[in-house]
Amino acid sequence: MFLKNVWYVAAFDHEFDQPFVARRLLDVPVVMFRAGDGTLAALEDLCPHRLLPLSCGKRVEDQMQCGYHGMRFDAQGRCTDVPGQGNIPAAAHVRSFPLVLRHGLAWIWMGAPELADAALIPDLHLNDDPGWAASRGYHHIQADYRLLNDNLLDLSHETYVHQHTIGNEEEESIANYPVEVSVTDDSLVRVHREMPDIDPPPFFKMILQHDGAINRWQSAVHLAPCINITVVGIHPIGTDRTSAALGHAQHLLTPETTDSTHYFWSFVRNYRVDDPALSDTLGEAIRRTFDEDKAILEIQQRQARALNRPLPAVAIKLDEGPIRARRLLERRLQAESENPARIVPPPELVPKHSYALAD
Amino acid sequence: MFLKNVWYVAAFDHEFDQPFVARRLLDVPVVMFRAGDGTLAALEDLCPHRLLPLSCGKRVEDQMQCGYHGMRFDAQGRCTDVPGQGNIPAAAHVRSFPLVLRHGLAWIWMGAPELADAALIPDLHLNDDPGWAASRGYHHIQADYRLLNDNLLDLSHETYVHQHTIGNEEEESIANYPVEVSVTDDSLVRVHREMPDIDPPPFFKMILQHDGAINRWQSAVHLAPCINITVVGIHPIGTDRTSAALGHAQHLLTPETTDSTHYFWSFVRNYRVDDPALSDTLGEAIRRTFDEDKAILEIQQRQARALNRPLPAVAIKLDEGPIRARRLLERRLQAESENPARIVPPPELVPKHSYALAD
Amino acid sequence: MFLKNVWYVAAFDHEFDQPFVARRLLDVPVVMFRAGDGTLAALEDLCPHRLLPLSCGKRVEDQMQCGYHGMRFDAQGRCTDVPGQGNIPAAAHVRSFPLVLRHGLAWIWMGAPELADAALIPDLHLNDDPGWAASRGYHHIQADYRLLNDNLLDLSHETYVHQHTIGNEEEESIANYPVEVSVTDDSLVRVHREMPDIDPPPFFKMILQHDGAINRWQSAVHLAPCINITVVGIHPIGTDRTSAALGHAQHLLTPETTDSTHYFWSFVRNYRVDDPALSDTLGEAIRRTFDEDKAILEIQQRQARALNRPLPAVAIKLDEGPIRARRLLERRLQAESENPARIVPPPELVPKHSYALAD
Repeated sequence: MFLKNVWYVAAFDHEFDQPFVARRLLDVPVVMFRAGDGTLAALEDLCPHRLLPLSCGKRVEDQMQCGYHGMRFDAQGRCTDVPGQGNIPAAAHVRSFPLVLRHGLAWIWMGAPELADAALIPDLHLNDDPGWAASRGYHHIQADYRLLNDNLLDLSHETYVHQHTIGNEEEESIANYPVEVSVTDDSLVRVHREMPDIDPPPFFKMILQHDGAINRWQSAVHLAPCINITVVGIHPIGTDRTSAALGHAQHLLTPETTDSTHYFWSFVRNYRVDDPALSDTLGEAIRRTFDEDKAILEIQQRQARALNRPLPAVAIKLDEGPIRARRLLERRLQAESENPARIVPPPELVPKHSYALAD
Repeated sequence: MFLKNVWYVAAFDHEFDQPFVARRLLDVPVVMFRAGDGTLAALEDLCPHRLLPLSCGKRVEDQMQCGYHGMRFDAQGRCTDVPGQGNIPAAAHVRSFPLVLRHGLAWIWMGAPELADAALIPDLHLNDDPGWAASRGYHHIQADYRLLNDNLLDLSHETYVHQHTIGNEEEESIANYPVEVSVTDDSLVRVHREMPDIDPPPFFKMILQHDGAINRWQSAVHLAPCINITVVGIHPIGTDRTSAALGHAQHLLTPETTDSTHYFWSFVRNYRVDDPALSDTLGEAIRRTFDEDKAILEIQQRQARALNRPLPAVAIKLDEGPIRARRLLERRLQAESENPARIVPPPELVPKHSYALAD
Repeated sequence: MFLKNVWYVAAFDHEFDQPFVARRLLDVPVVMFRAGDGTLAALEDLCPHRLLPLSCGKRVEDQMQCGYHGMRFDAQGRCTDVPGQGNIPAAAHVRSFPLVLRHGLAWIWMGAPELADAALIPDLHLNDDPGWAASRGYHHIQADYRLLNDNLLDLSHETYVHQHTIGNEEEESIANYPVEVSVTDDSLVRVHREMPDIDPPPFFKMILQHDGAINRWQSAVHLAPCINITVVGIHPIGTDRTSAALGHAQHLLTPETTDSTHYFWSFVRNYRVDDPALSDTLGEAIRRTFDEDKAILEIQQRQARALNRPLPAVAIKLDEGPIRARRLLERRLQAESENPARIVPPPELVPKHSYALAD
């Protein structure tokens, strides 16, 4: 149920300041570290001798040493030492995985290694673009990643789930603004919503230093199987759209198991980029907002497991984006199962200026 | 394994001071509230859209609003609003259940709604009879409700389970007094025990303001499937039986799941009815007593699950009441499965004066 | 998967200062007590009436009384009293098990009682030999007892698991000293290792009051199915081997379930036997050491369950002892299943002087 031939986010770059990082990814236990030469290594986190996770042992130079009997494995998963004997048993090796650092993130390839091509990593360059500032964090969600995709492709939930954080009043419900749903290249689903000439909520007033009416737009961008970006643009009425204040909430999901998801997130903005206090404030506000999603998603996961019904059980208009993304994913999974070498290069995720120039 | 065509206790009346009450009943999640006009409403606690419990949302006037996308449902379970669209999908409704307030209790009917007839609610009028005073409480028991019936139909366990609360000394074991077991009308099992001319325990002395010998009787009254009343009468020897001090412990059980039970209880008495401090003292004593039952019952449930043997595994004389009640329940379940419209009106539970005039 | 016709350690003698001891052994719940005449009794911990553990009741003289309805059972498992009736139902009895005190330990026989012969109890007399001192303790391990046998038959794990307690430096890894593995009498596996002319670690210096080089040896002795003794001997070079300081770590395992193990342990020594402070210090050091094993073993158990692969998944040289012990156990289980009356008397576990005189 997982697409194999895509790059998944495995960690933030700063996590490699630790000796190693252990994390289950696509239901495979993985231990990762940064070698002395700066390259990243990822091994199956399982000693082939007595099945102990290598992460229960320790890092010794550029190798992992098992904590039970001291067998060592190098960055390629080759056993280099078996205490008590000179030769190495042929079966004493572990899987290794391509792991590449890009845009402040470590990307892992869990499919056939010979298909791994770093050019296929999605373009998230705003993460380390000097013209943008980032707030980052992580949530562990005890829910199928597809429930998170559903959530992120129907932003009308803001009004109800996030009423204590970013939600607006119900009278101005996001659901009242129609959406345009588009599917691109067997890869992307976009749900775009224009909210012209609205009274700005306090936070937007503060950002724009402006009290009058604004134009706002909001796009949910989904790259199968589990990269999502929420693009929000605002500008005062009468100003040019290319001058808009833009924020991209990057929701970088990686399945941990069929029932749980790693949720790496990064909010990047093009305004007040030299204000680290604002980065902290935004990071904290987003953390609390995603806590609200986590609560809903984990309840939904338990319900879906217990009741075993397809979702949505009853479809409404706002499900168009989520449903099209689920269908796209089903097609991709089917296609990959028929052709295990099938590769789908990711297209550009967000148009230049984040739809600022859209007609 | 649950009888459908009976009224079950779903809540105490005072619980409806809250916006809503959510509770699993007969393995169905239910959310209940008191509408503005004072009537009670009960809905399946499950949004048909994405399966979130409606109780994770909020009450809006006389409707429940889902906490994820804001769909609203009225007291009859009809969807009245889907944010983002004008029409309501045909499948967007939830089950509703008849819910009626009587005797200080909310009674729910989980069978076919057209069979619901409030005249079938068992007579527990002493709960709000001005000549009687009540102490009430609730226990959640992680055990099959039939284990609770067994427990309440063999009161000899008092000596062993309740030795630190209401139990008497083993030398005067309740088991030493013979019982009379009777079955009435395909509905009732009564286990009656006379304990004449006994030395009163301290509590009874205090109640009667009397030091000498007393007559005592004790009846376990069981209305299938899970209403139980323990009737206790005491009076000094030489006084008339109709003048007895009477207490009825009402054990109002409702299955939560096959393995757990809601235990609503009310102890009503005909003495010192204007003494609220005594009501509190009695309520606290009963709470501690039922804590002891809870401990035993939950162990027994785990054992019964793990060992998967019918109960009692070895029968003793005192099992007569429990066994007859289990057989009666089996007959009722069988009859209802053969005739899903079968109704058995409950007979009078406790004779006038609580057996005071029994021959 | 458990051998039946052997004596298992059920408790330490001092535990019988309590009214009773309840413990699951070979997946059977057992309640044990010391009767007034000093003999030990062991009963299946399960009231035949309503399946409550007898240990939820209380000890009344030399009987267990059920905590629900007061039925009593004597040391032979016969029911002696059913409250409320004069006769005893024929089915009202529980299993009893032979339980014998020897060497400071209570030994239980879970096989056919007529085969129980106290002469078959393994010789652990050093536990109460006046020339030796003992430090004792208990660990509960959530792991299959065979994983503990594996652990104790390959002591090279000391270097890695116990680096913070008894482990030496990796440069002097125990694995570097070759072992001699022997199997005796369908019962015993011994893994012996000589470590001649080594620089003593600080603890050994303190014991011997000697700074120079020493000879050391280490034997892992395994009696199927789950008695293990680690024998350690040290003496200064140039002194006679029979004068060695000896320590025996007795690891007395008894399966609780297929996935968990009671680990009774006793460390006996022939040096400074009149120093109770040293006994305490050693006991505490061993407790912390076995805490480290517990952590590893419980992880390994979870991995083995989740992955369902035979162990070792890849064999190394140091697995010779563990593998031979597993094969021996398989043969014994097979033989006992073919001949349920088969008895294998345990041979002498440790040669006199603990191999001090071995060639």
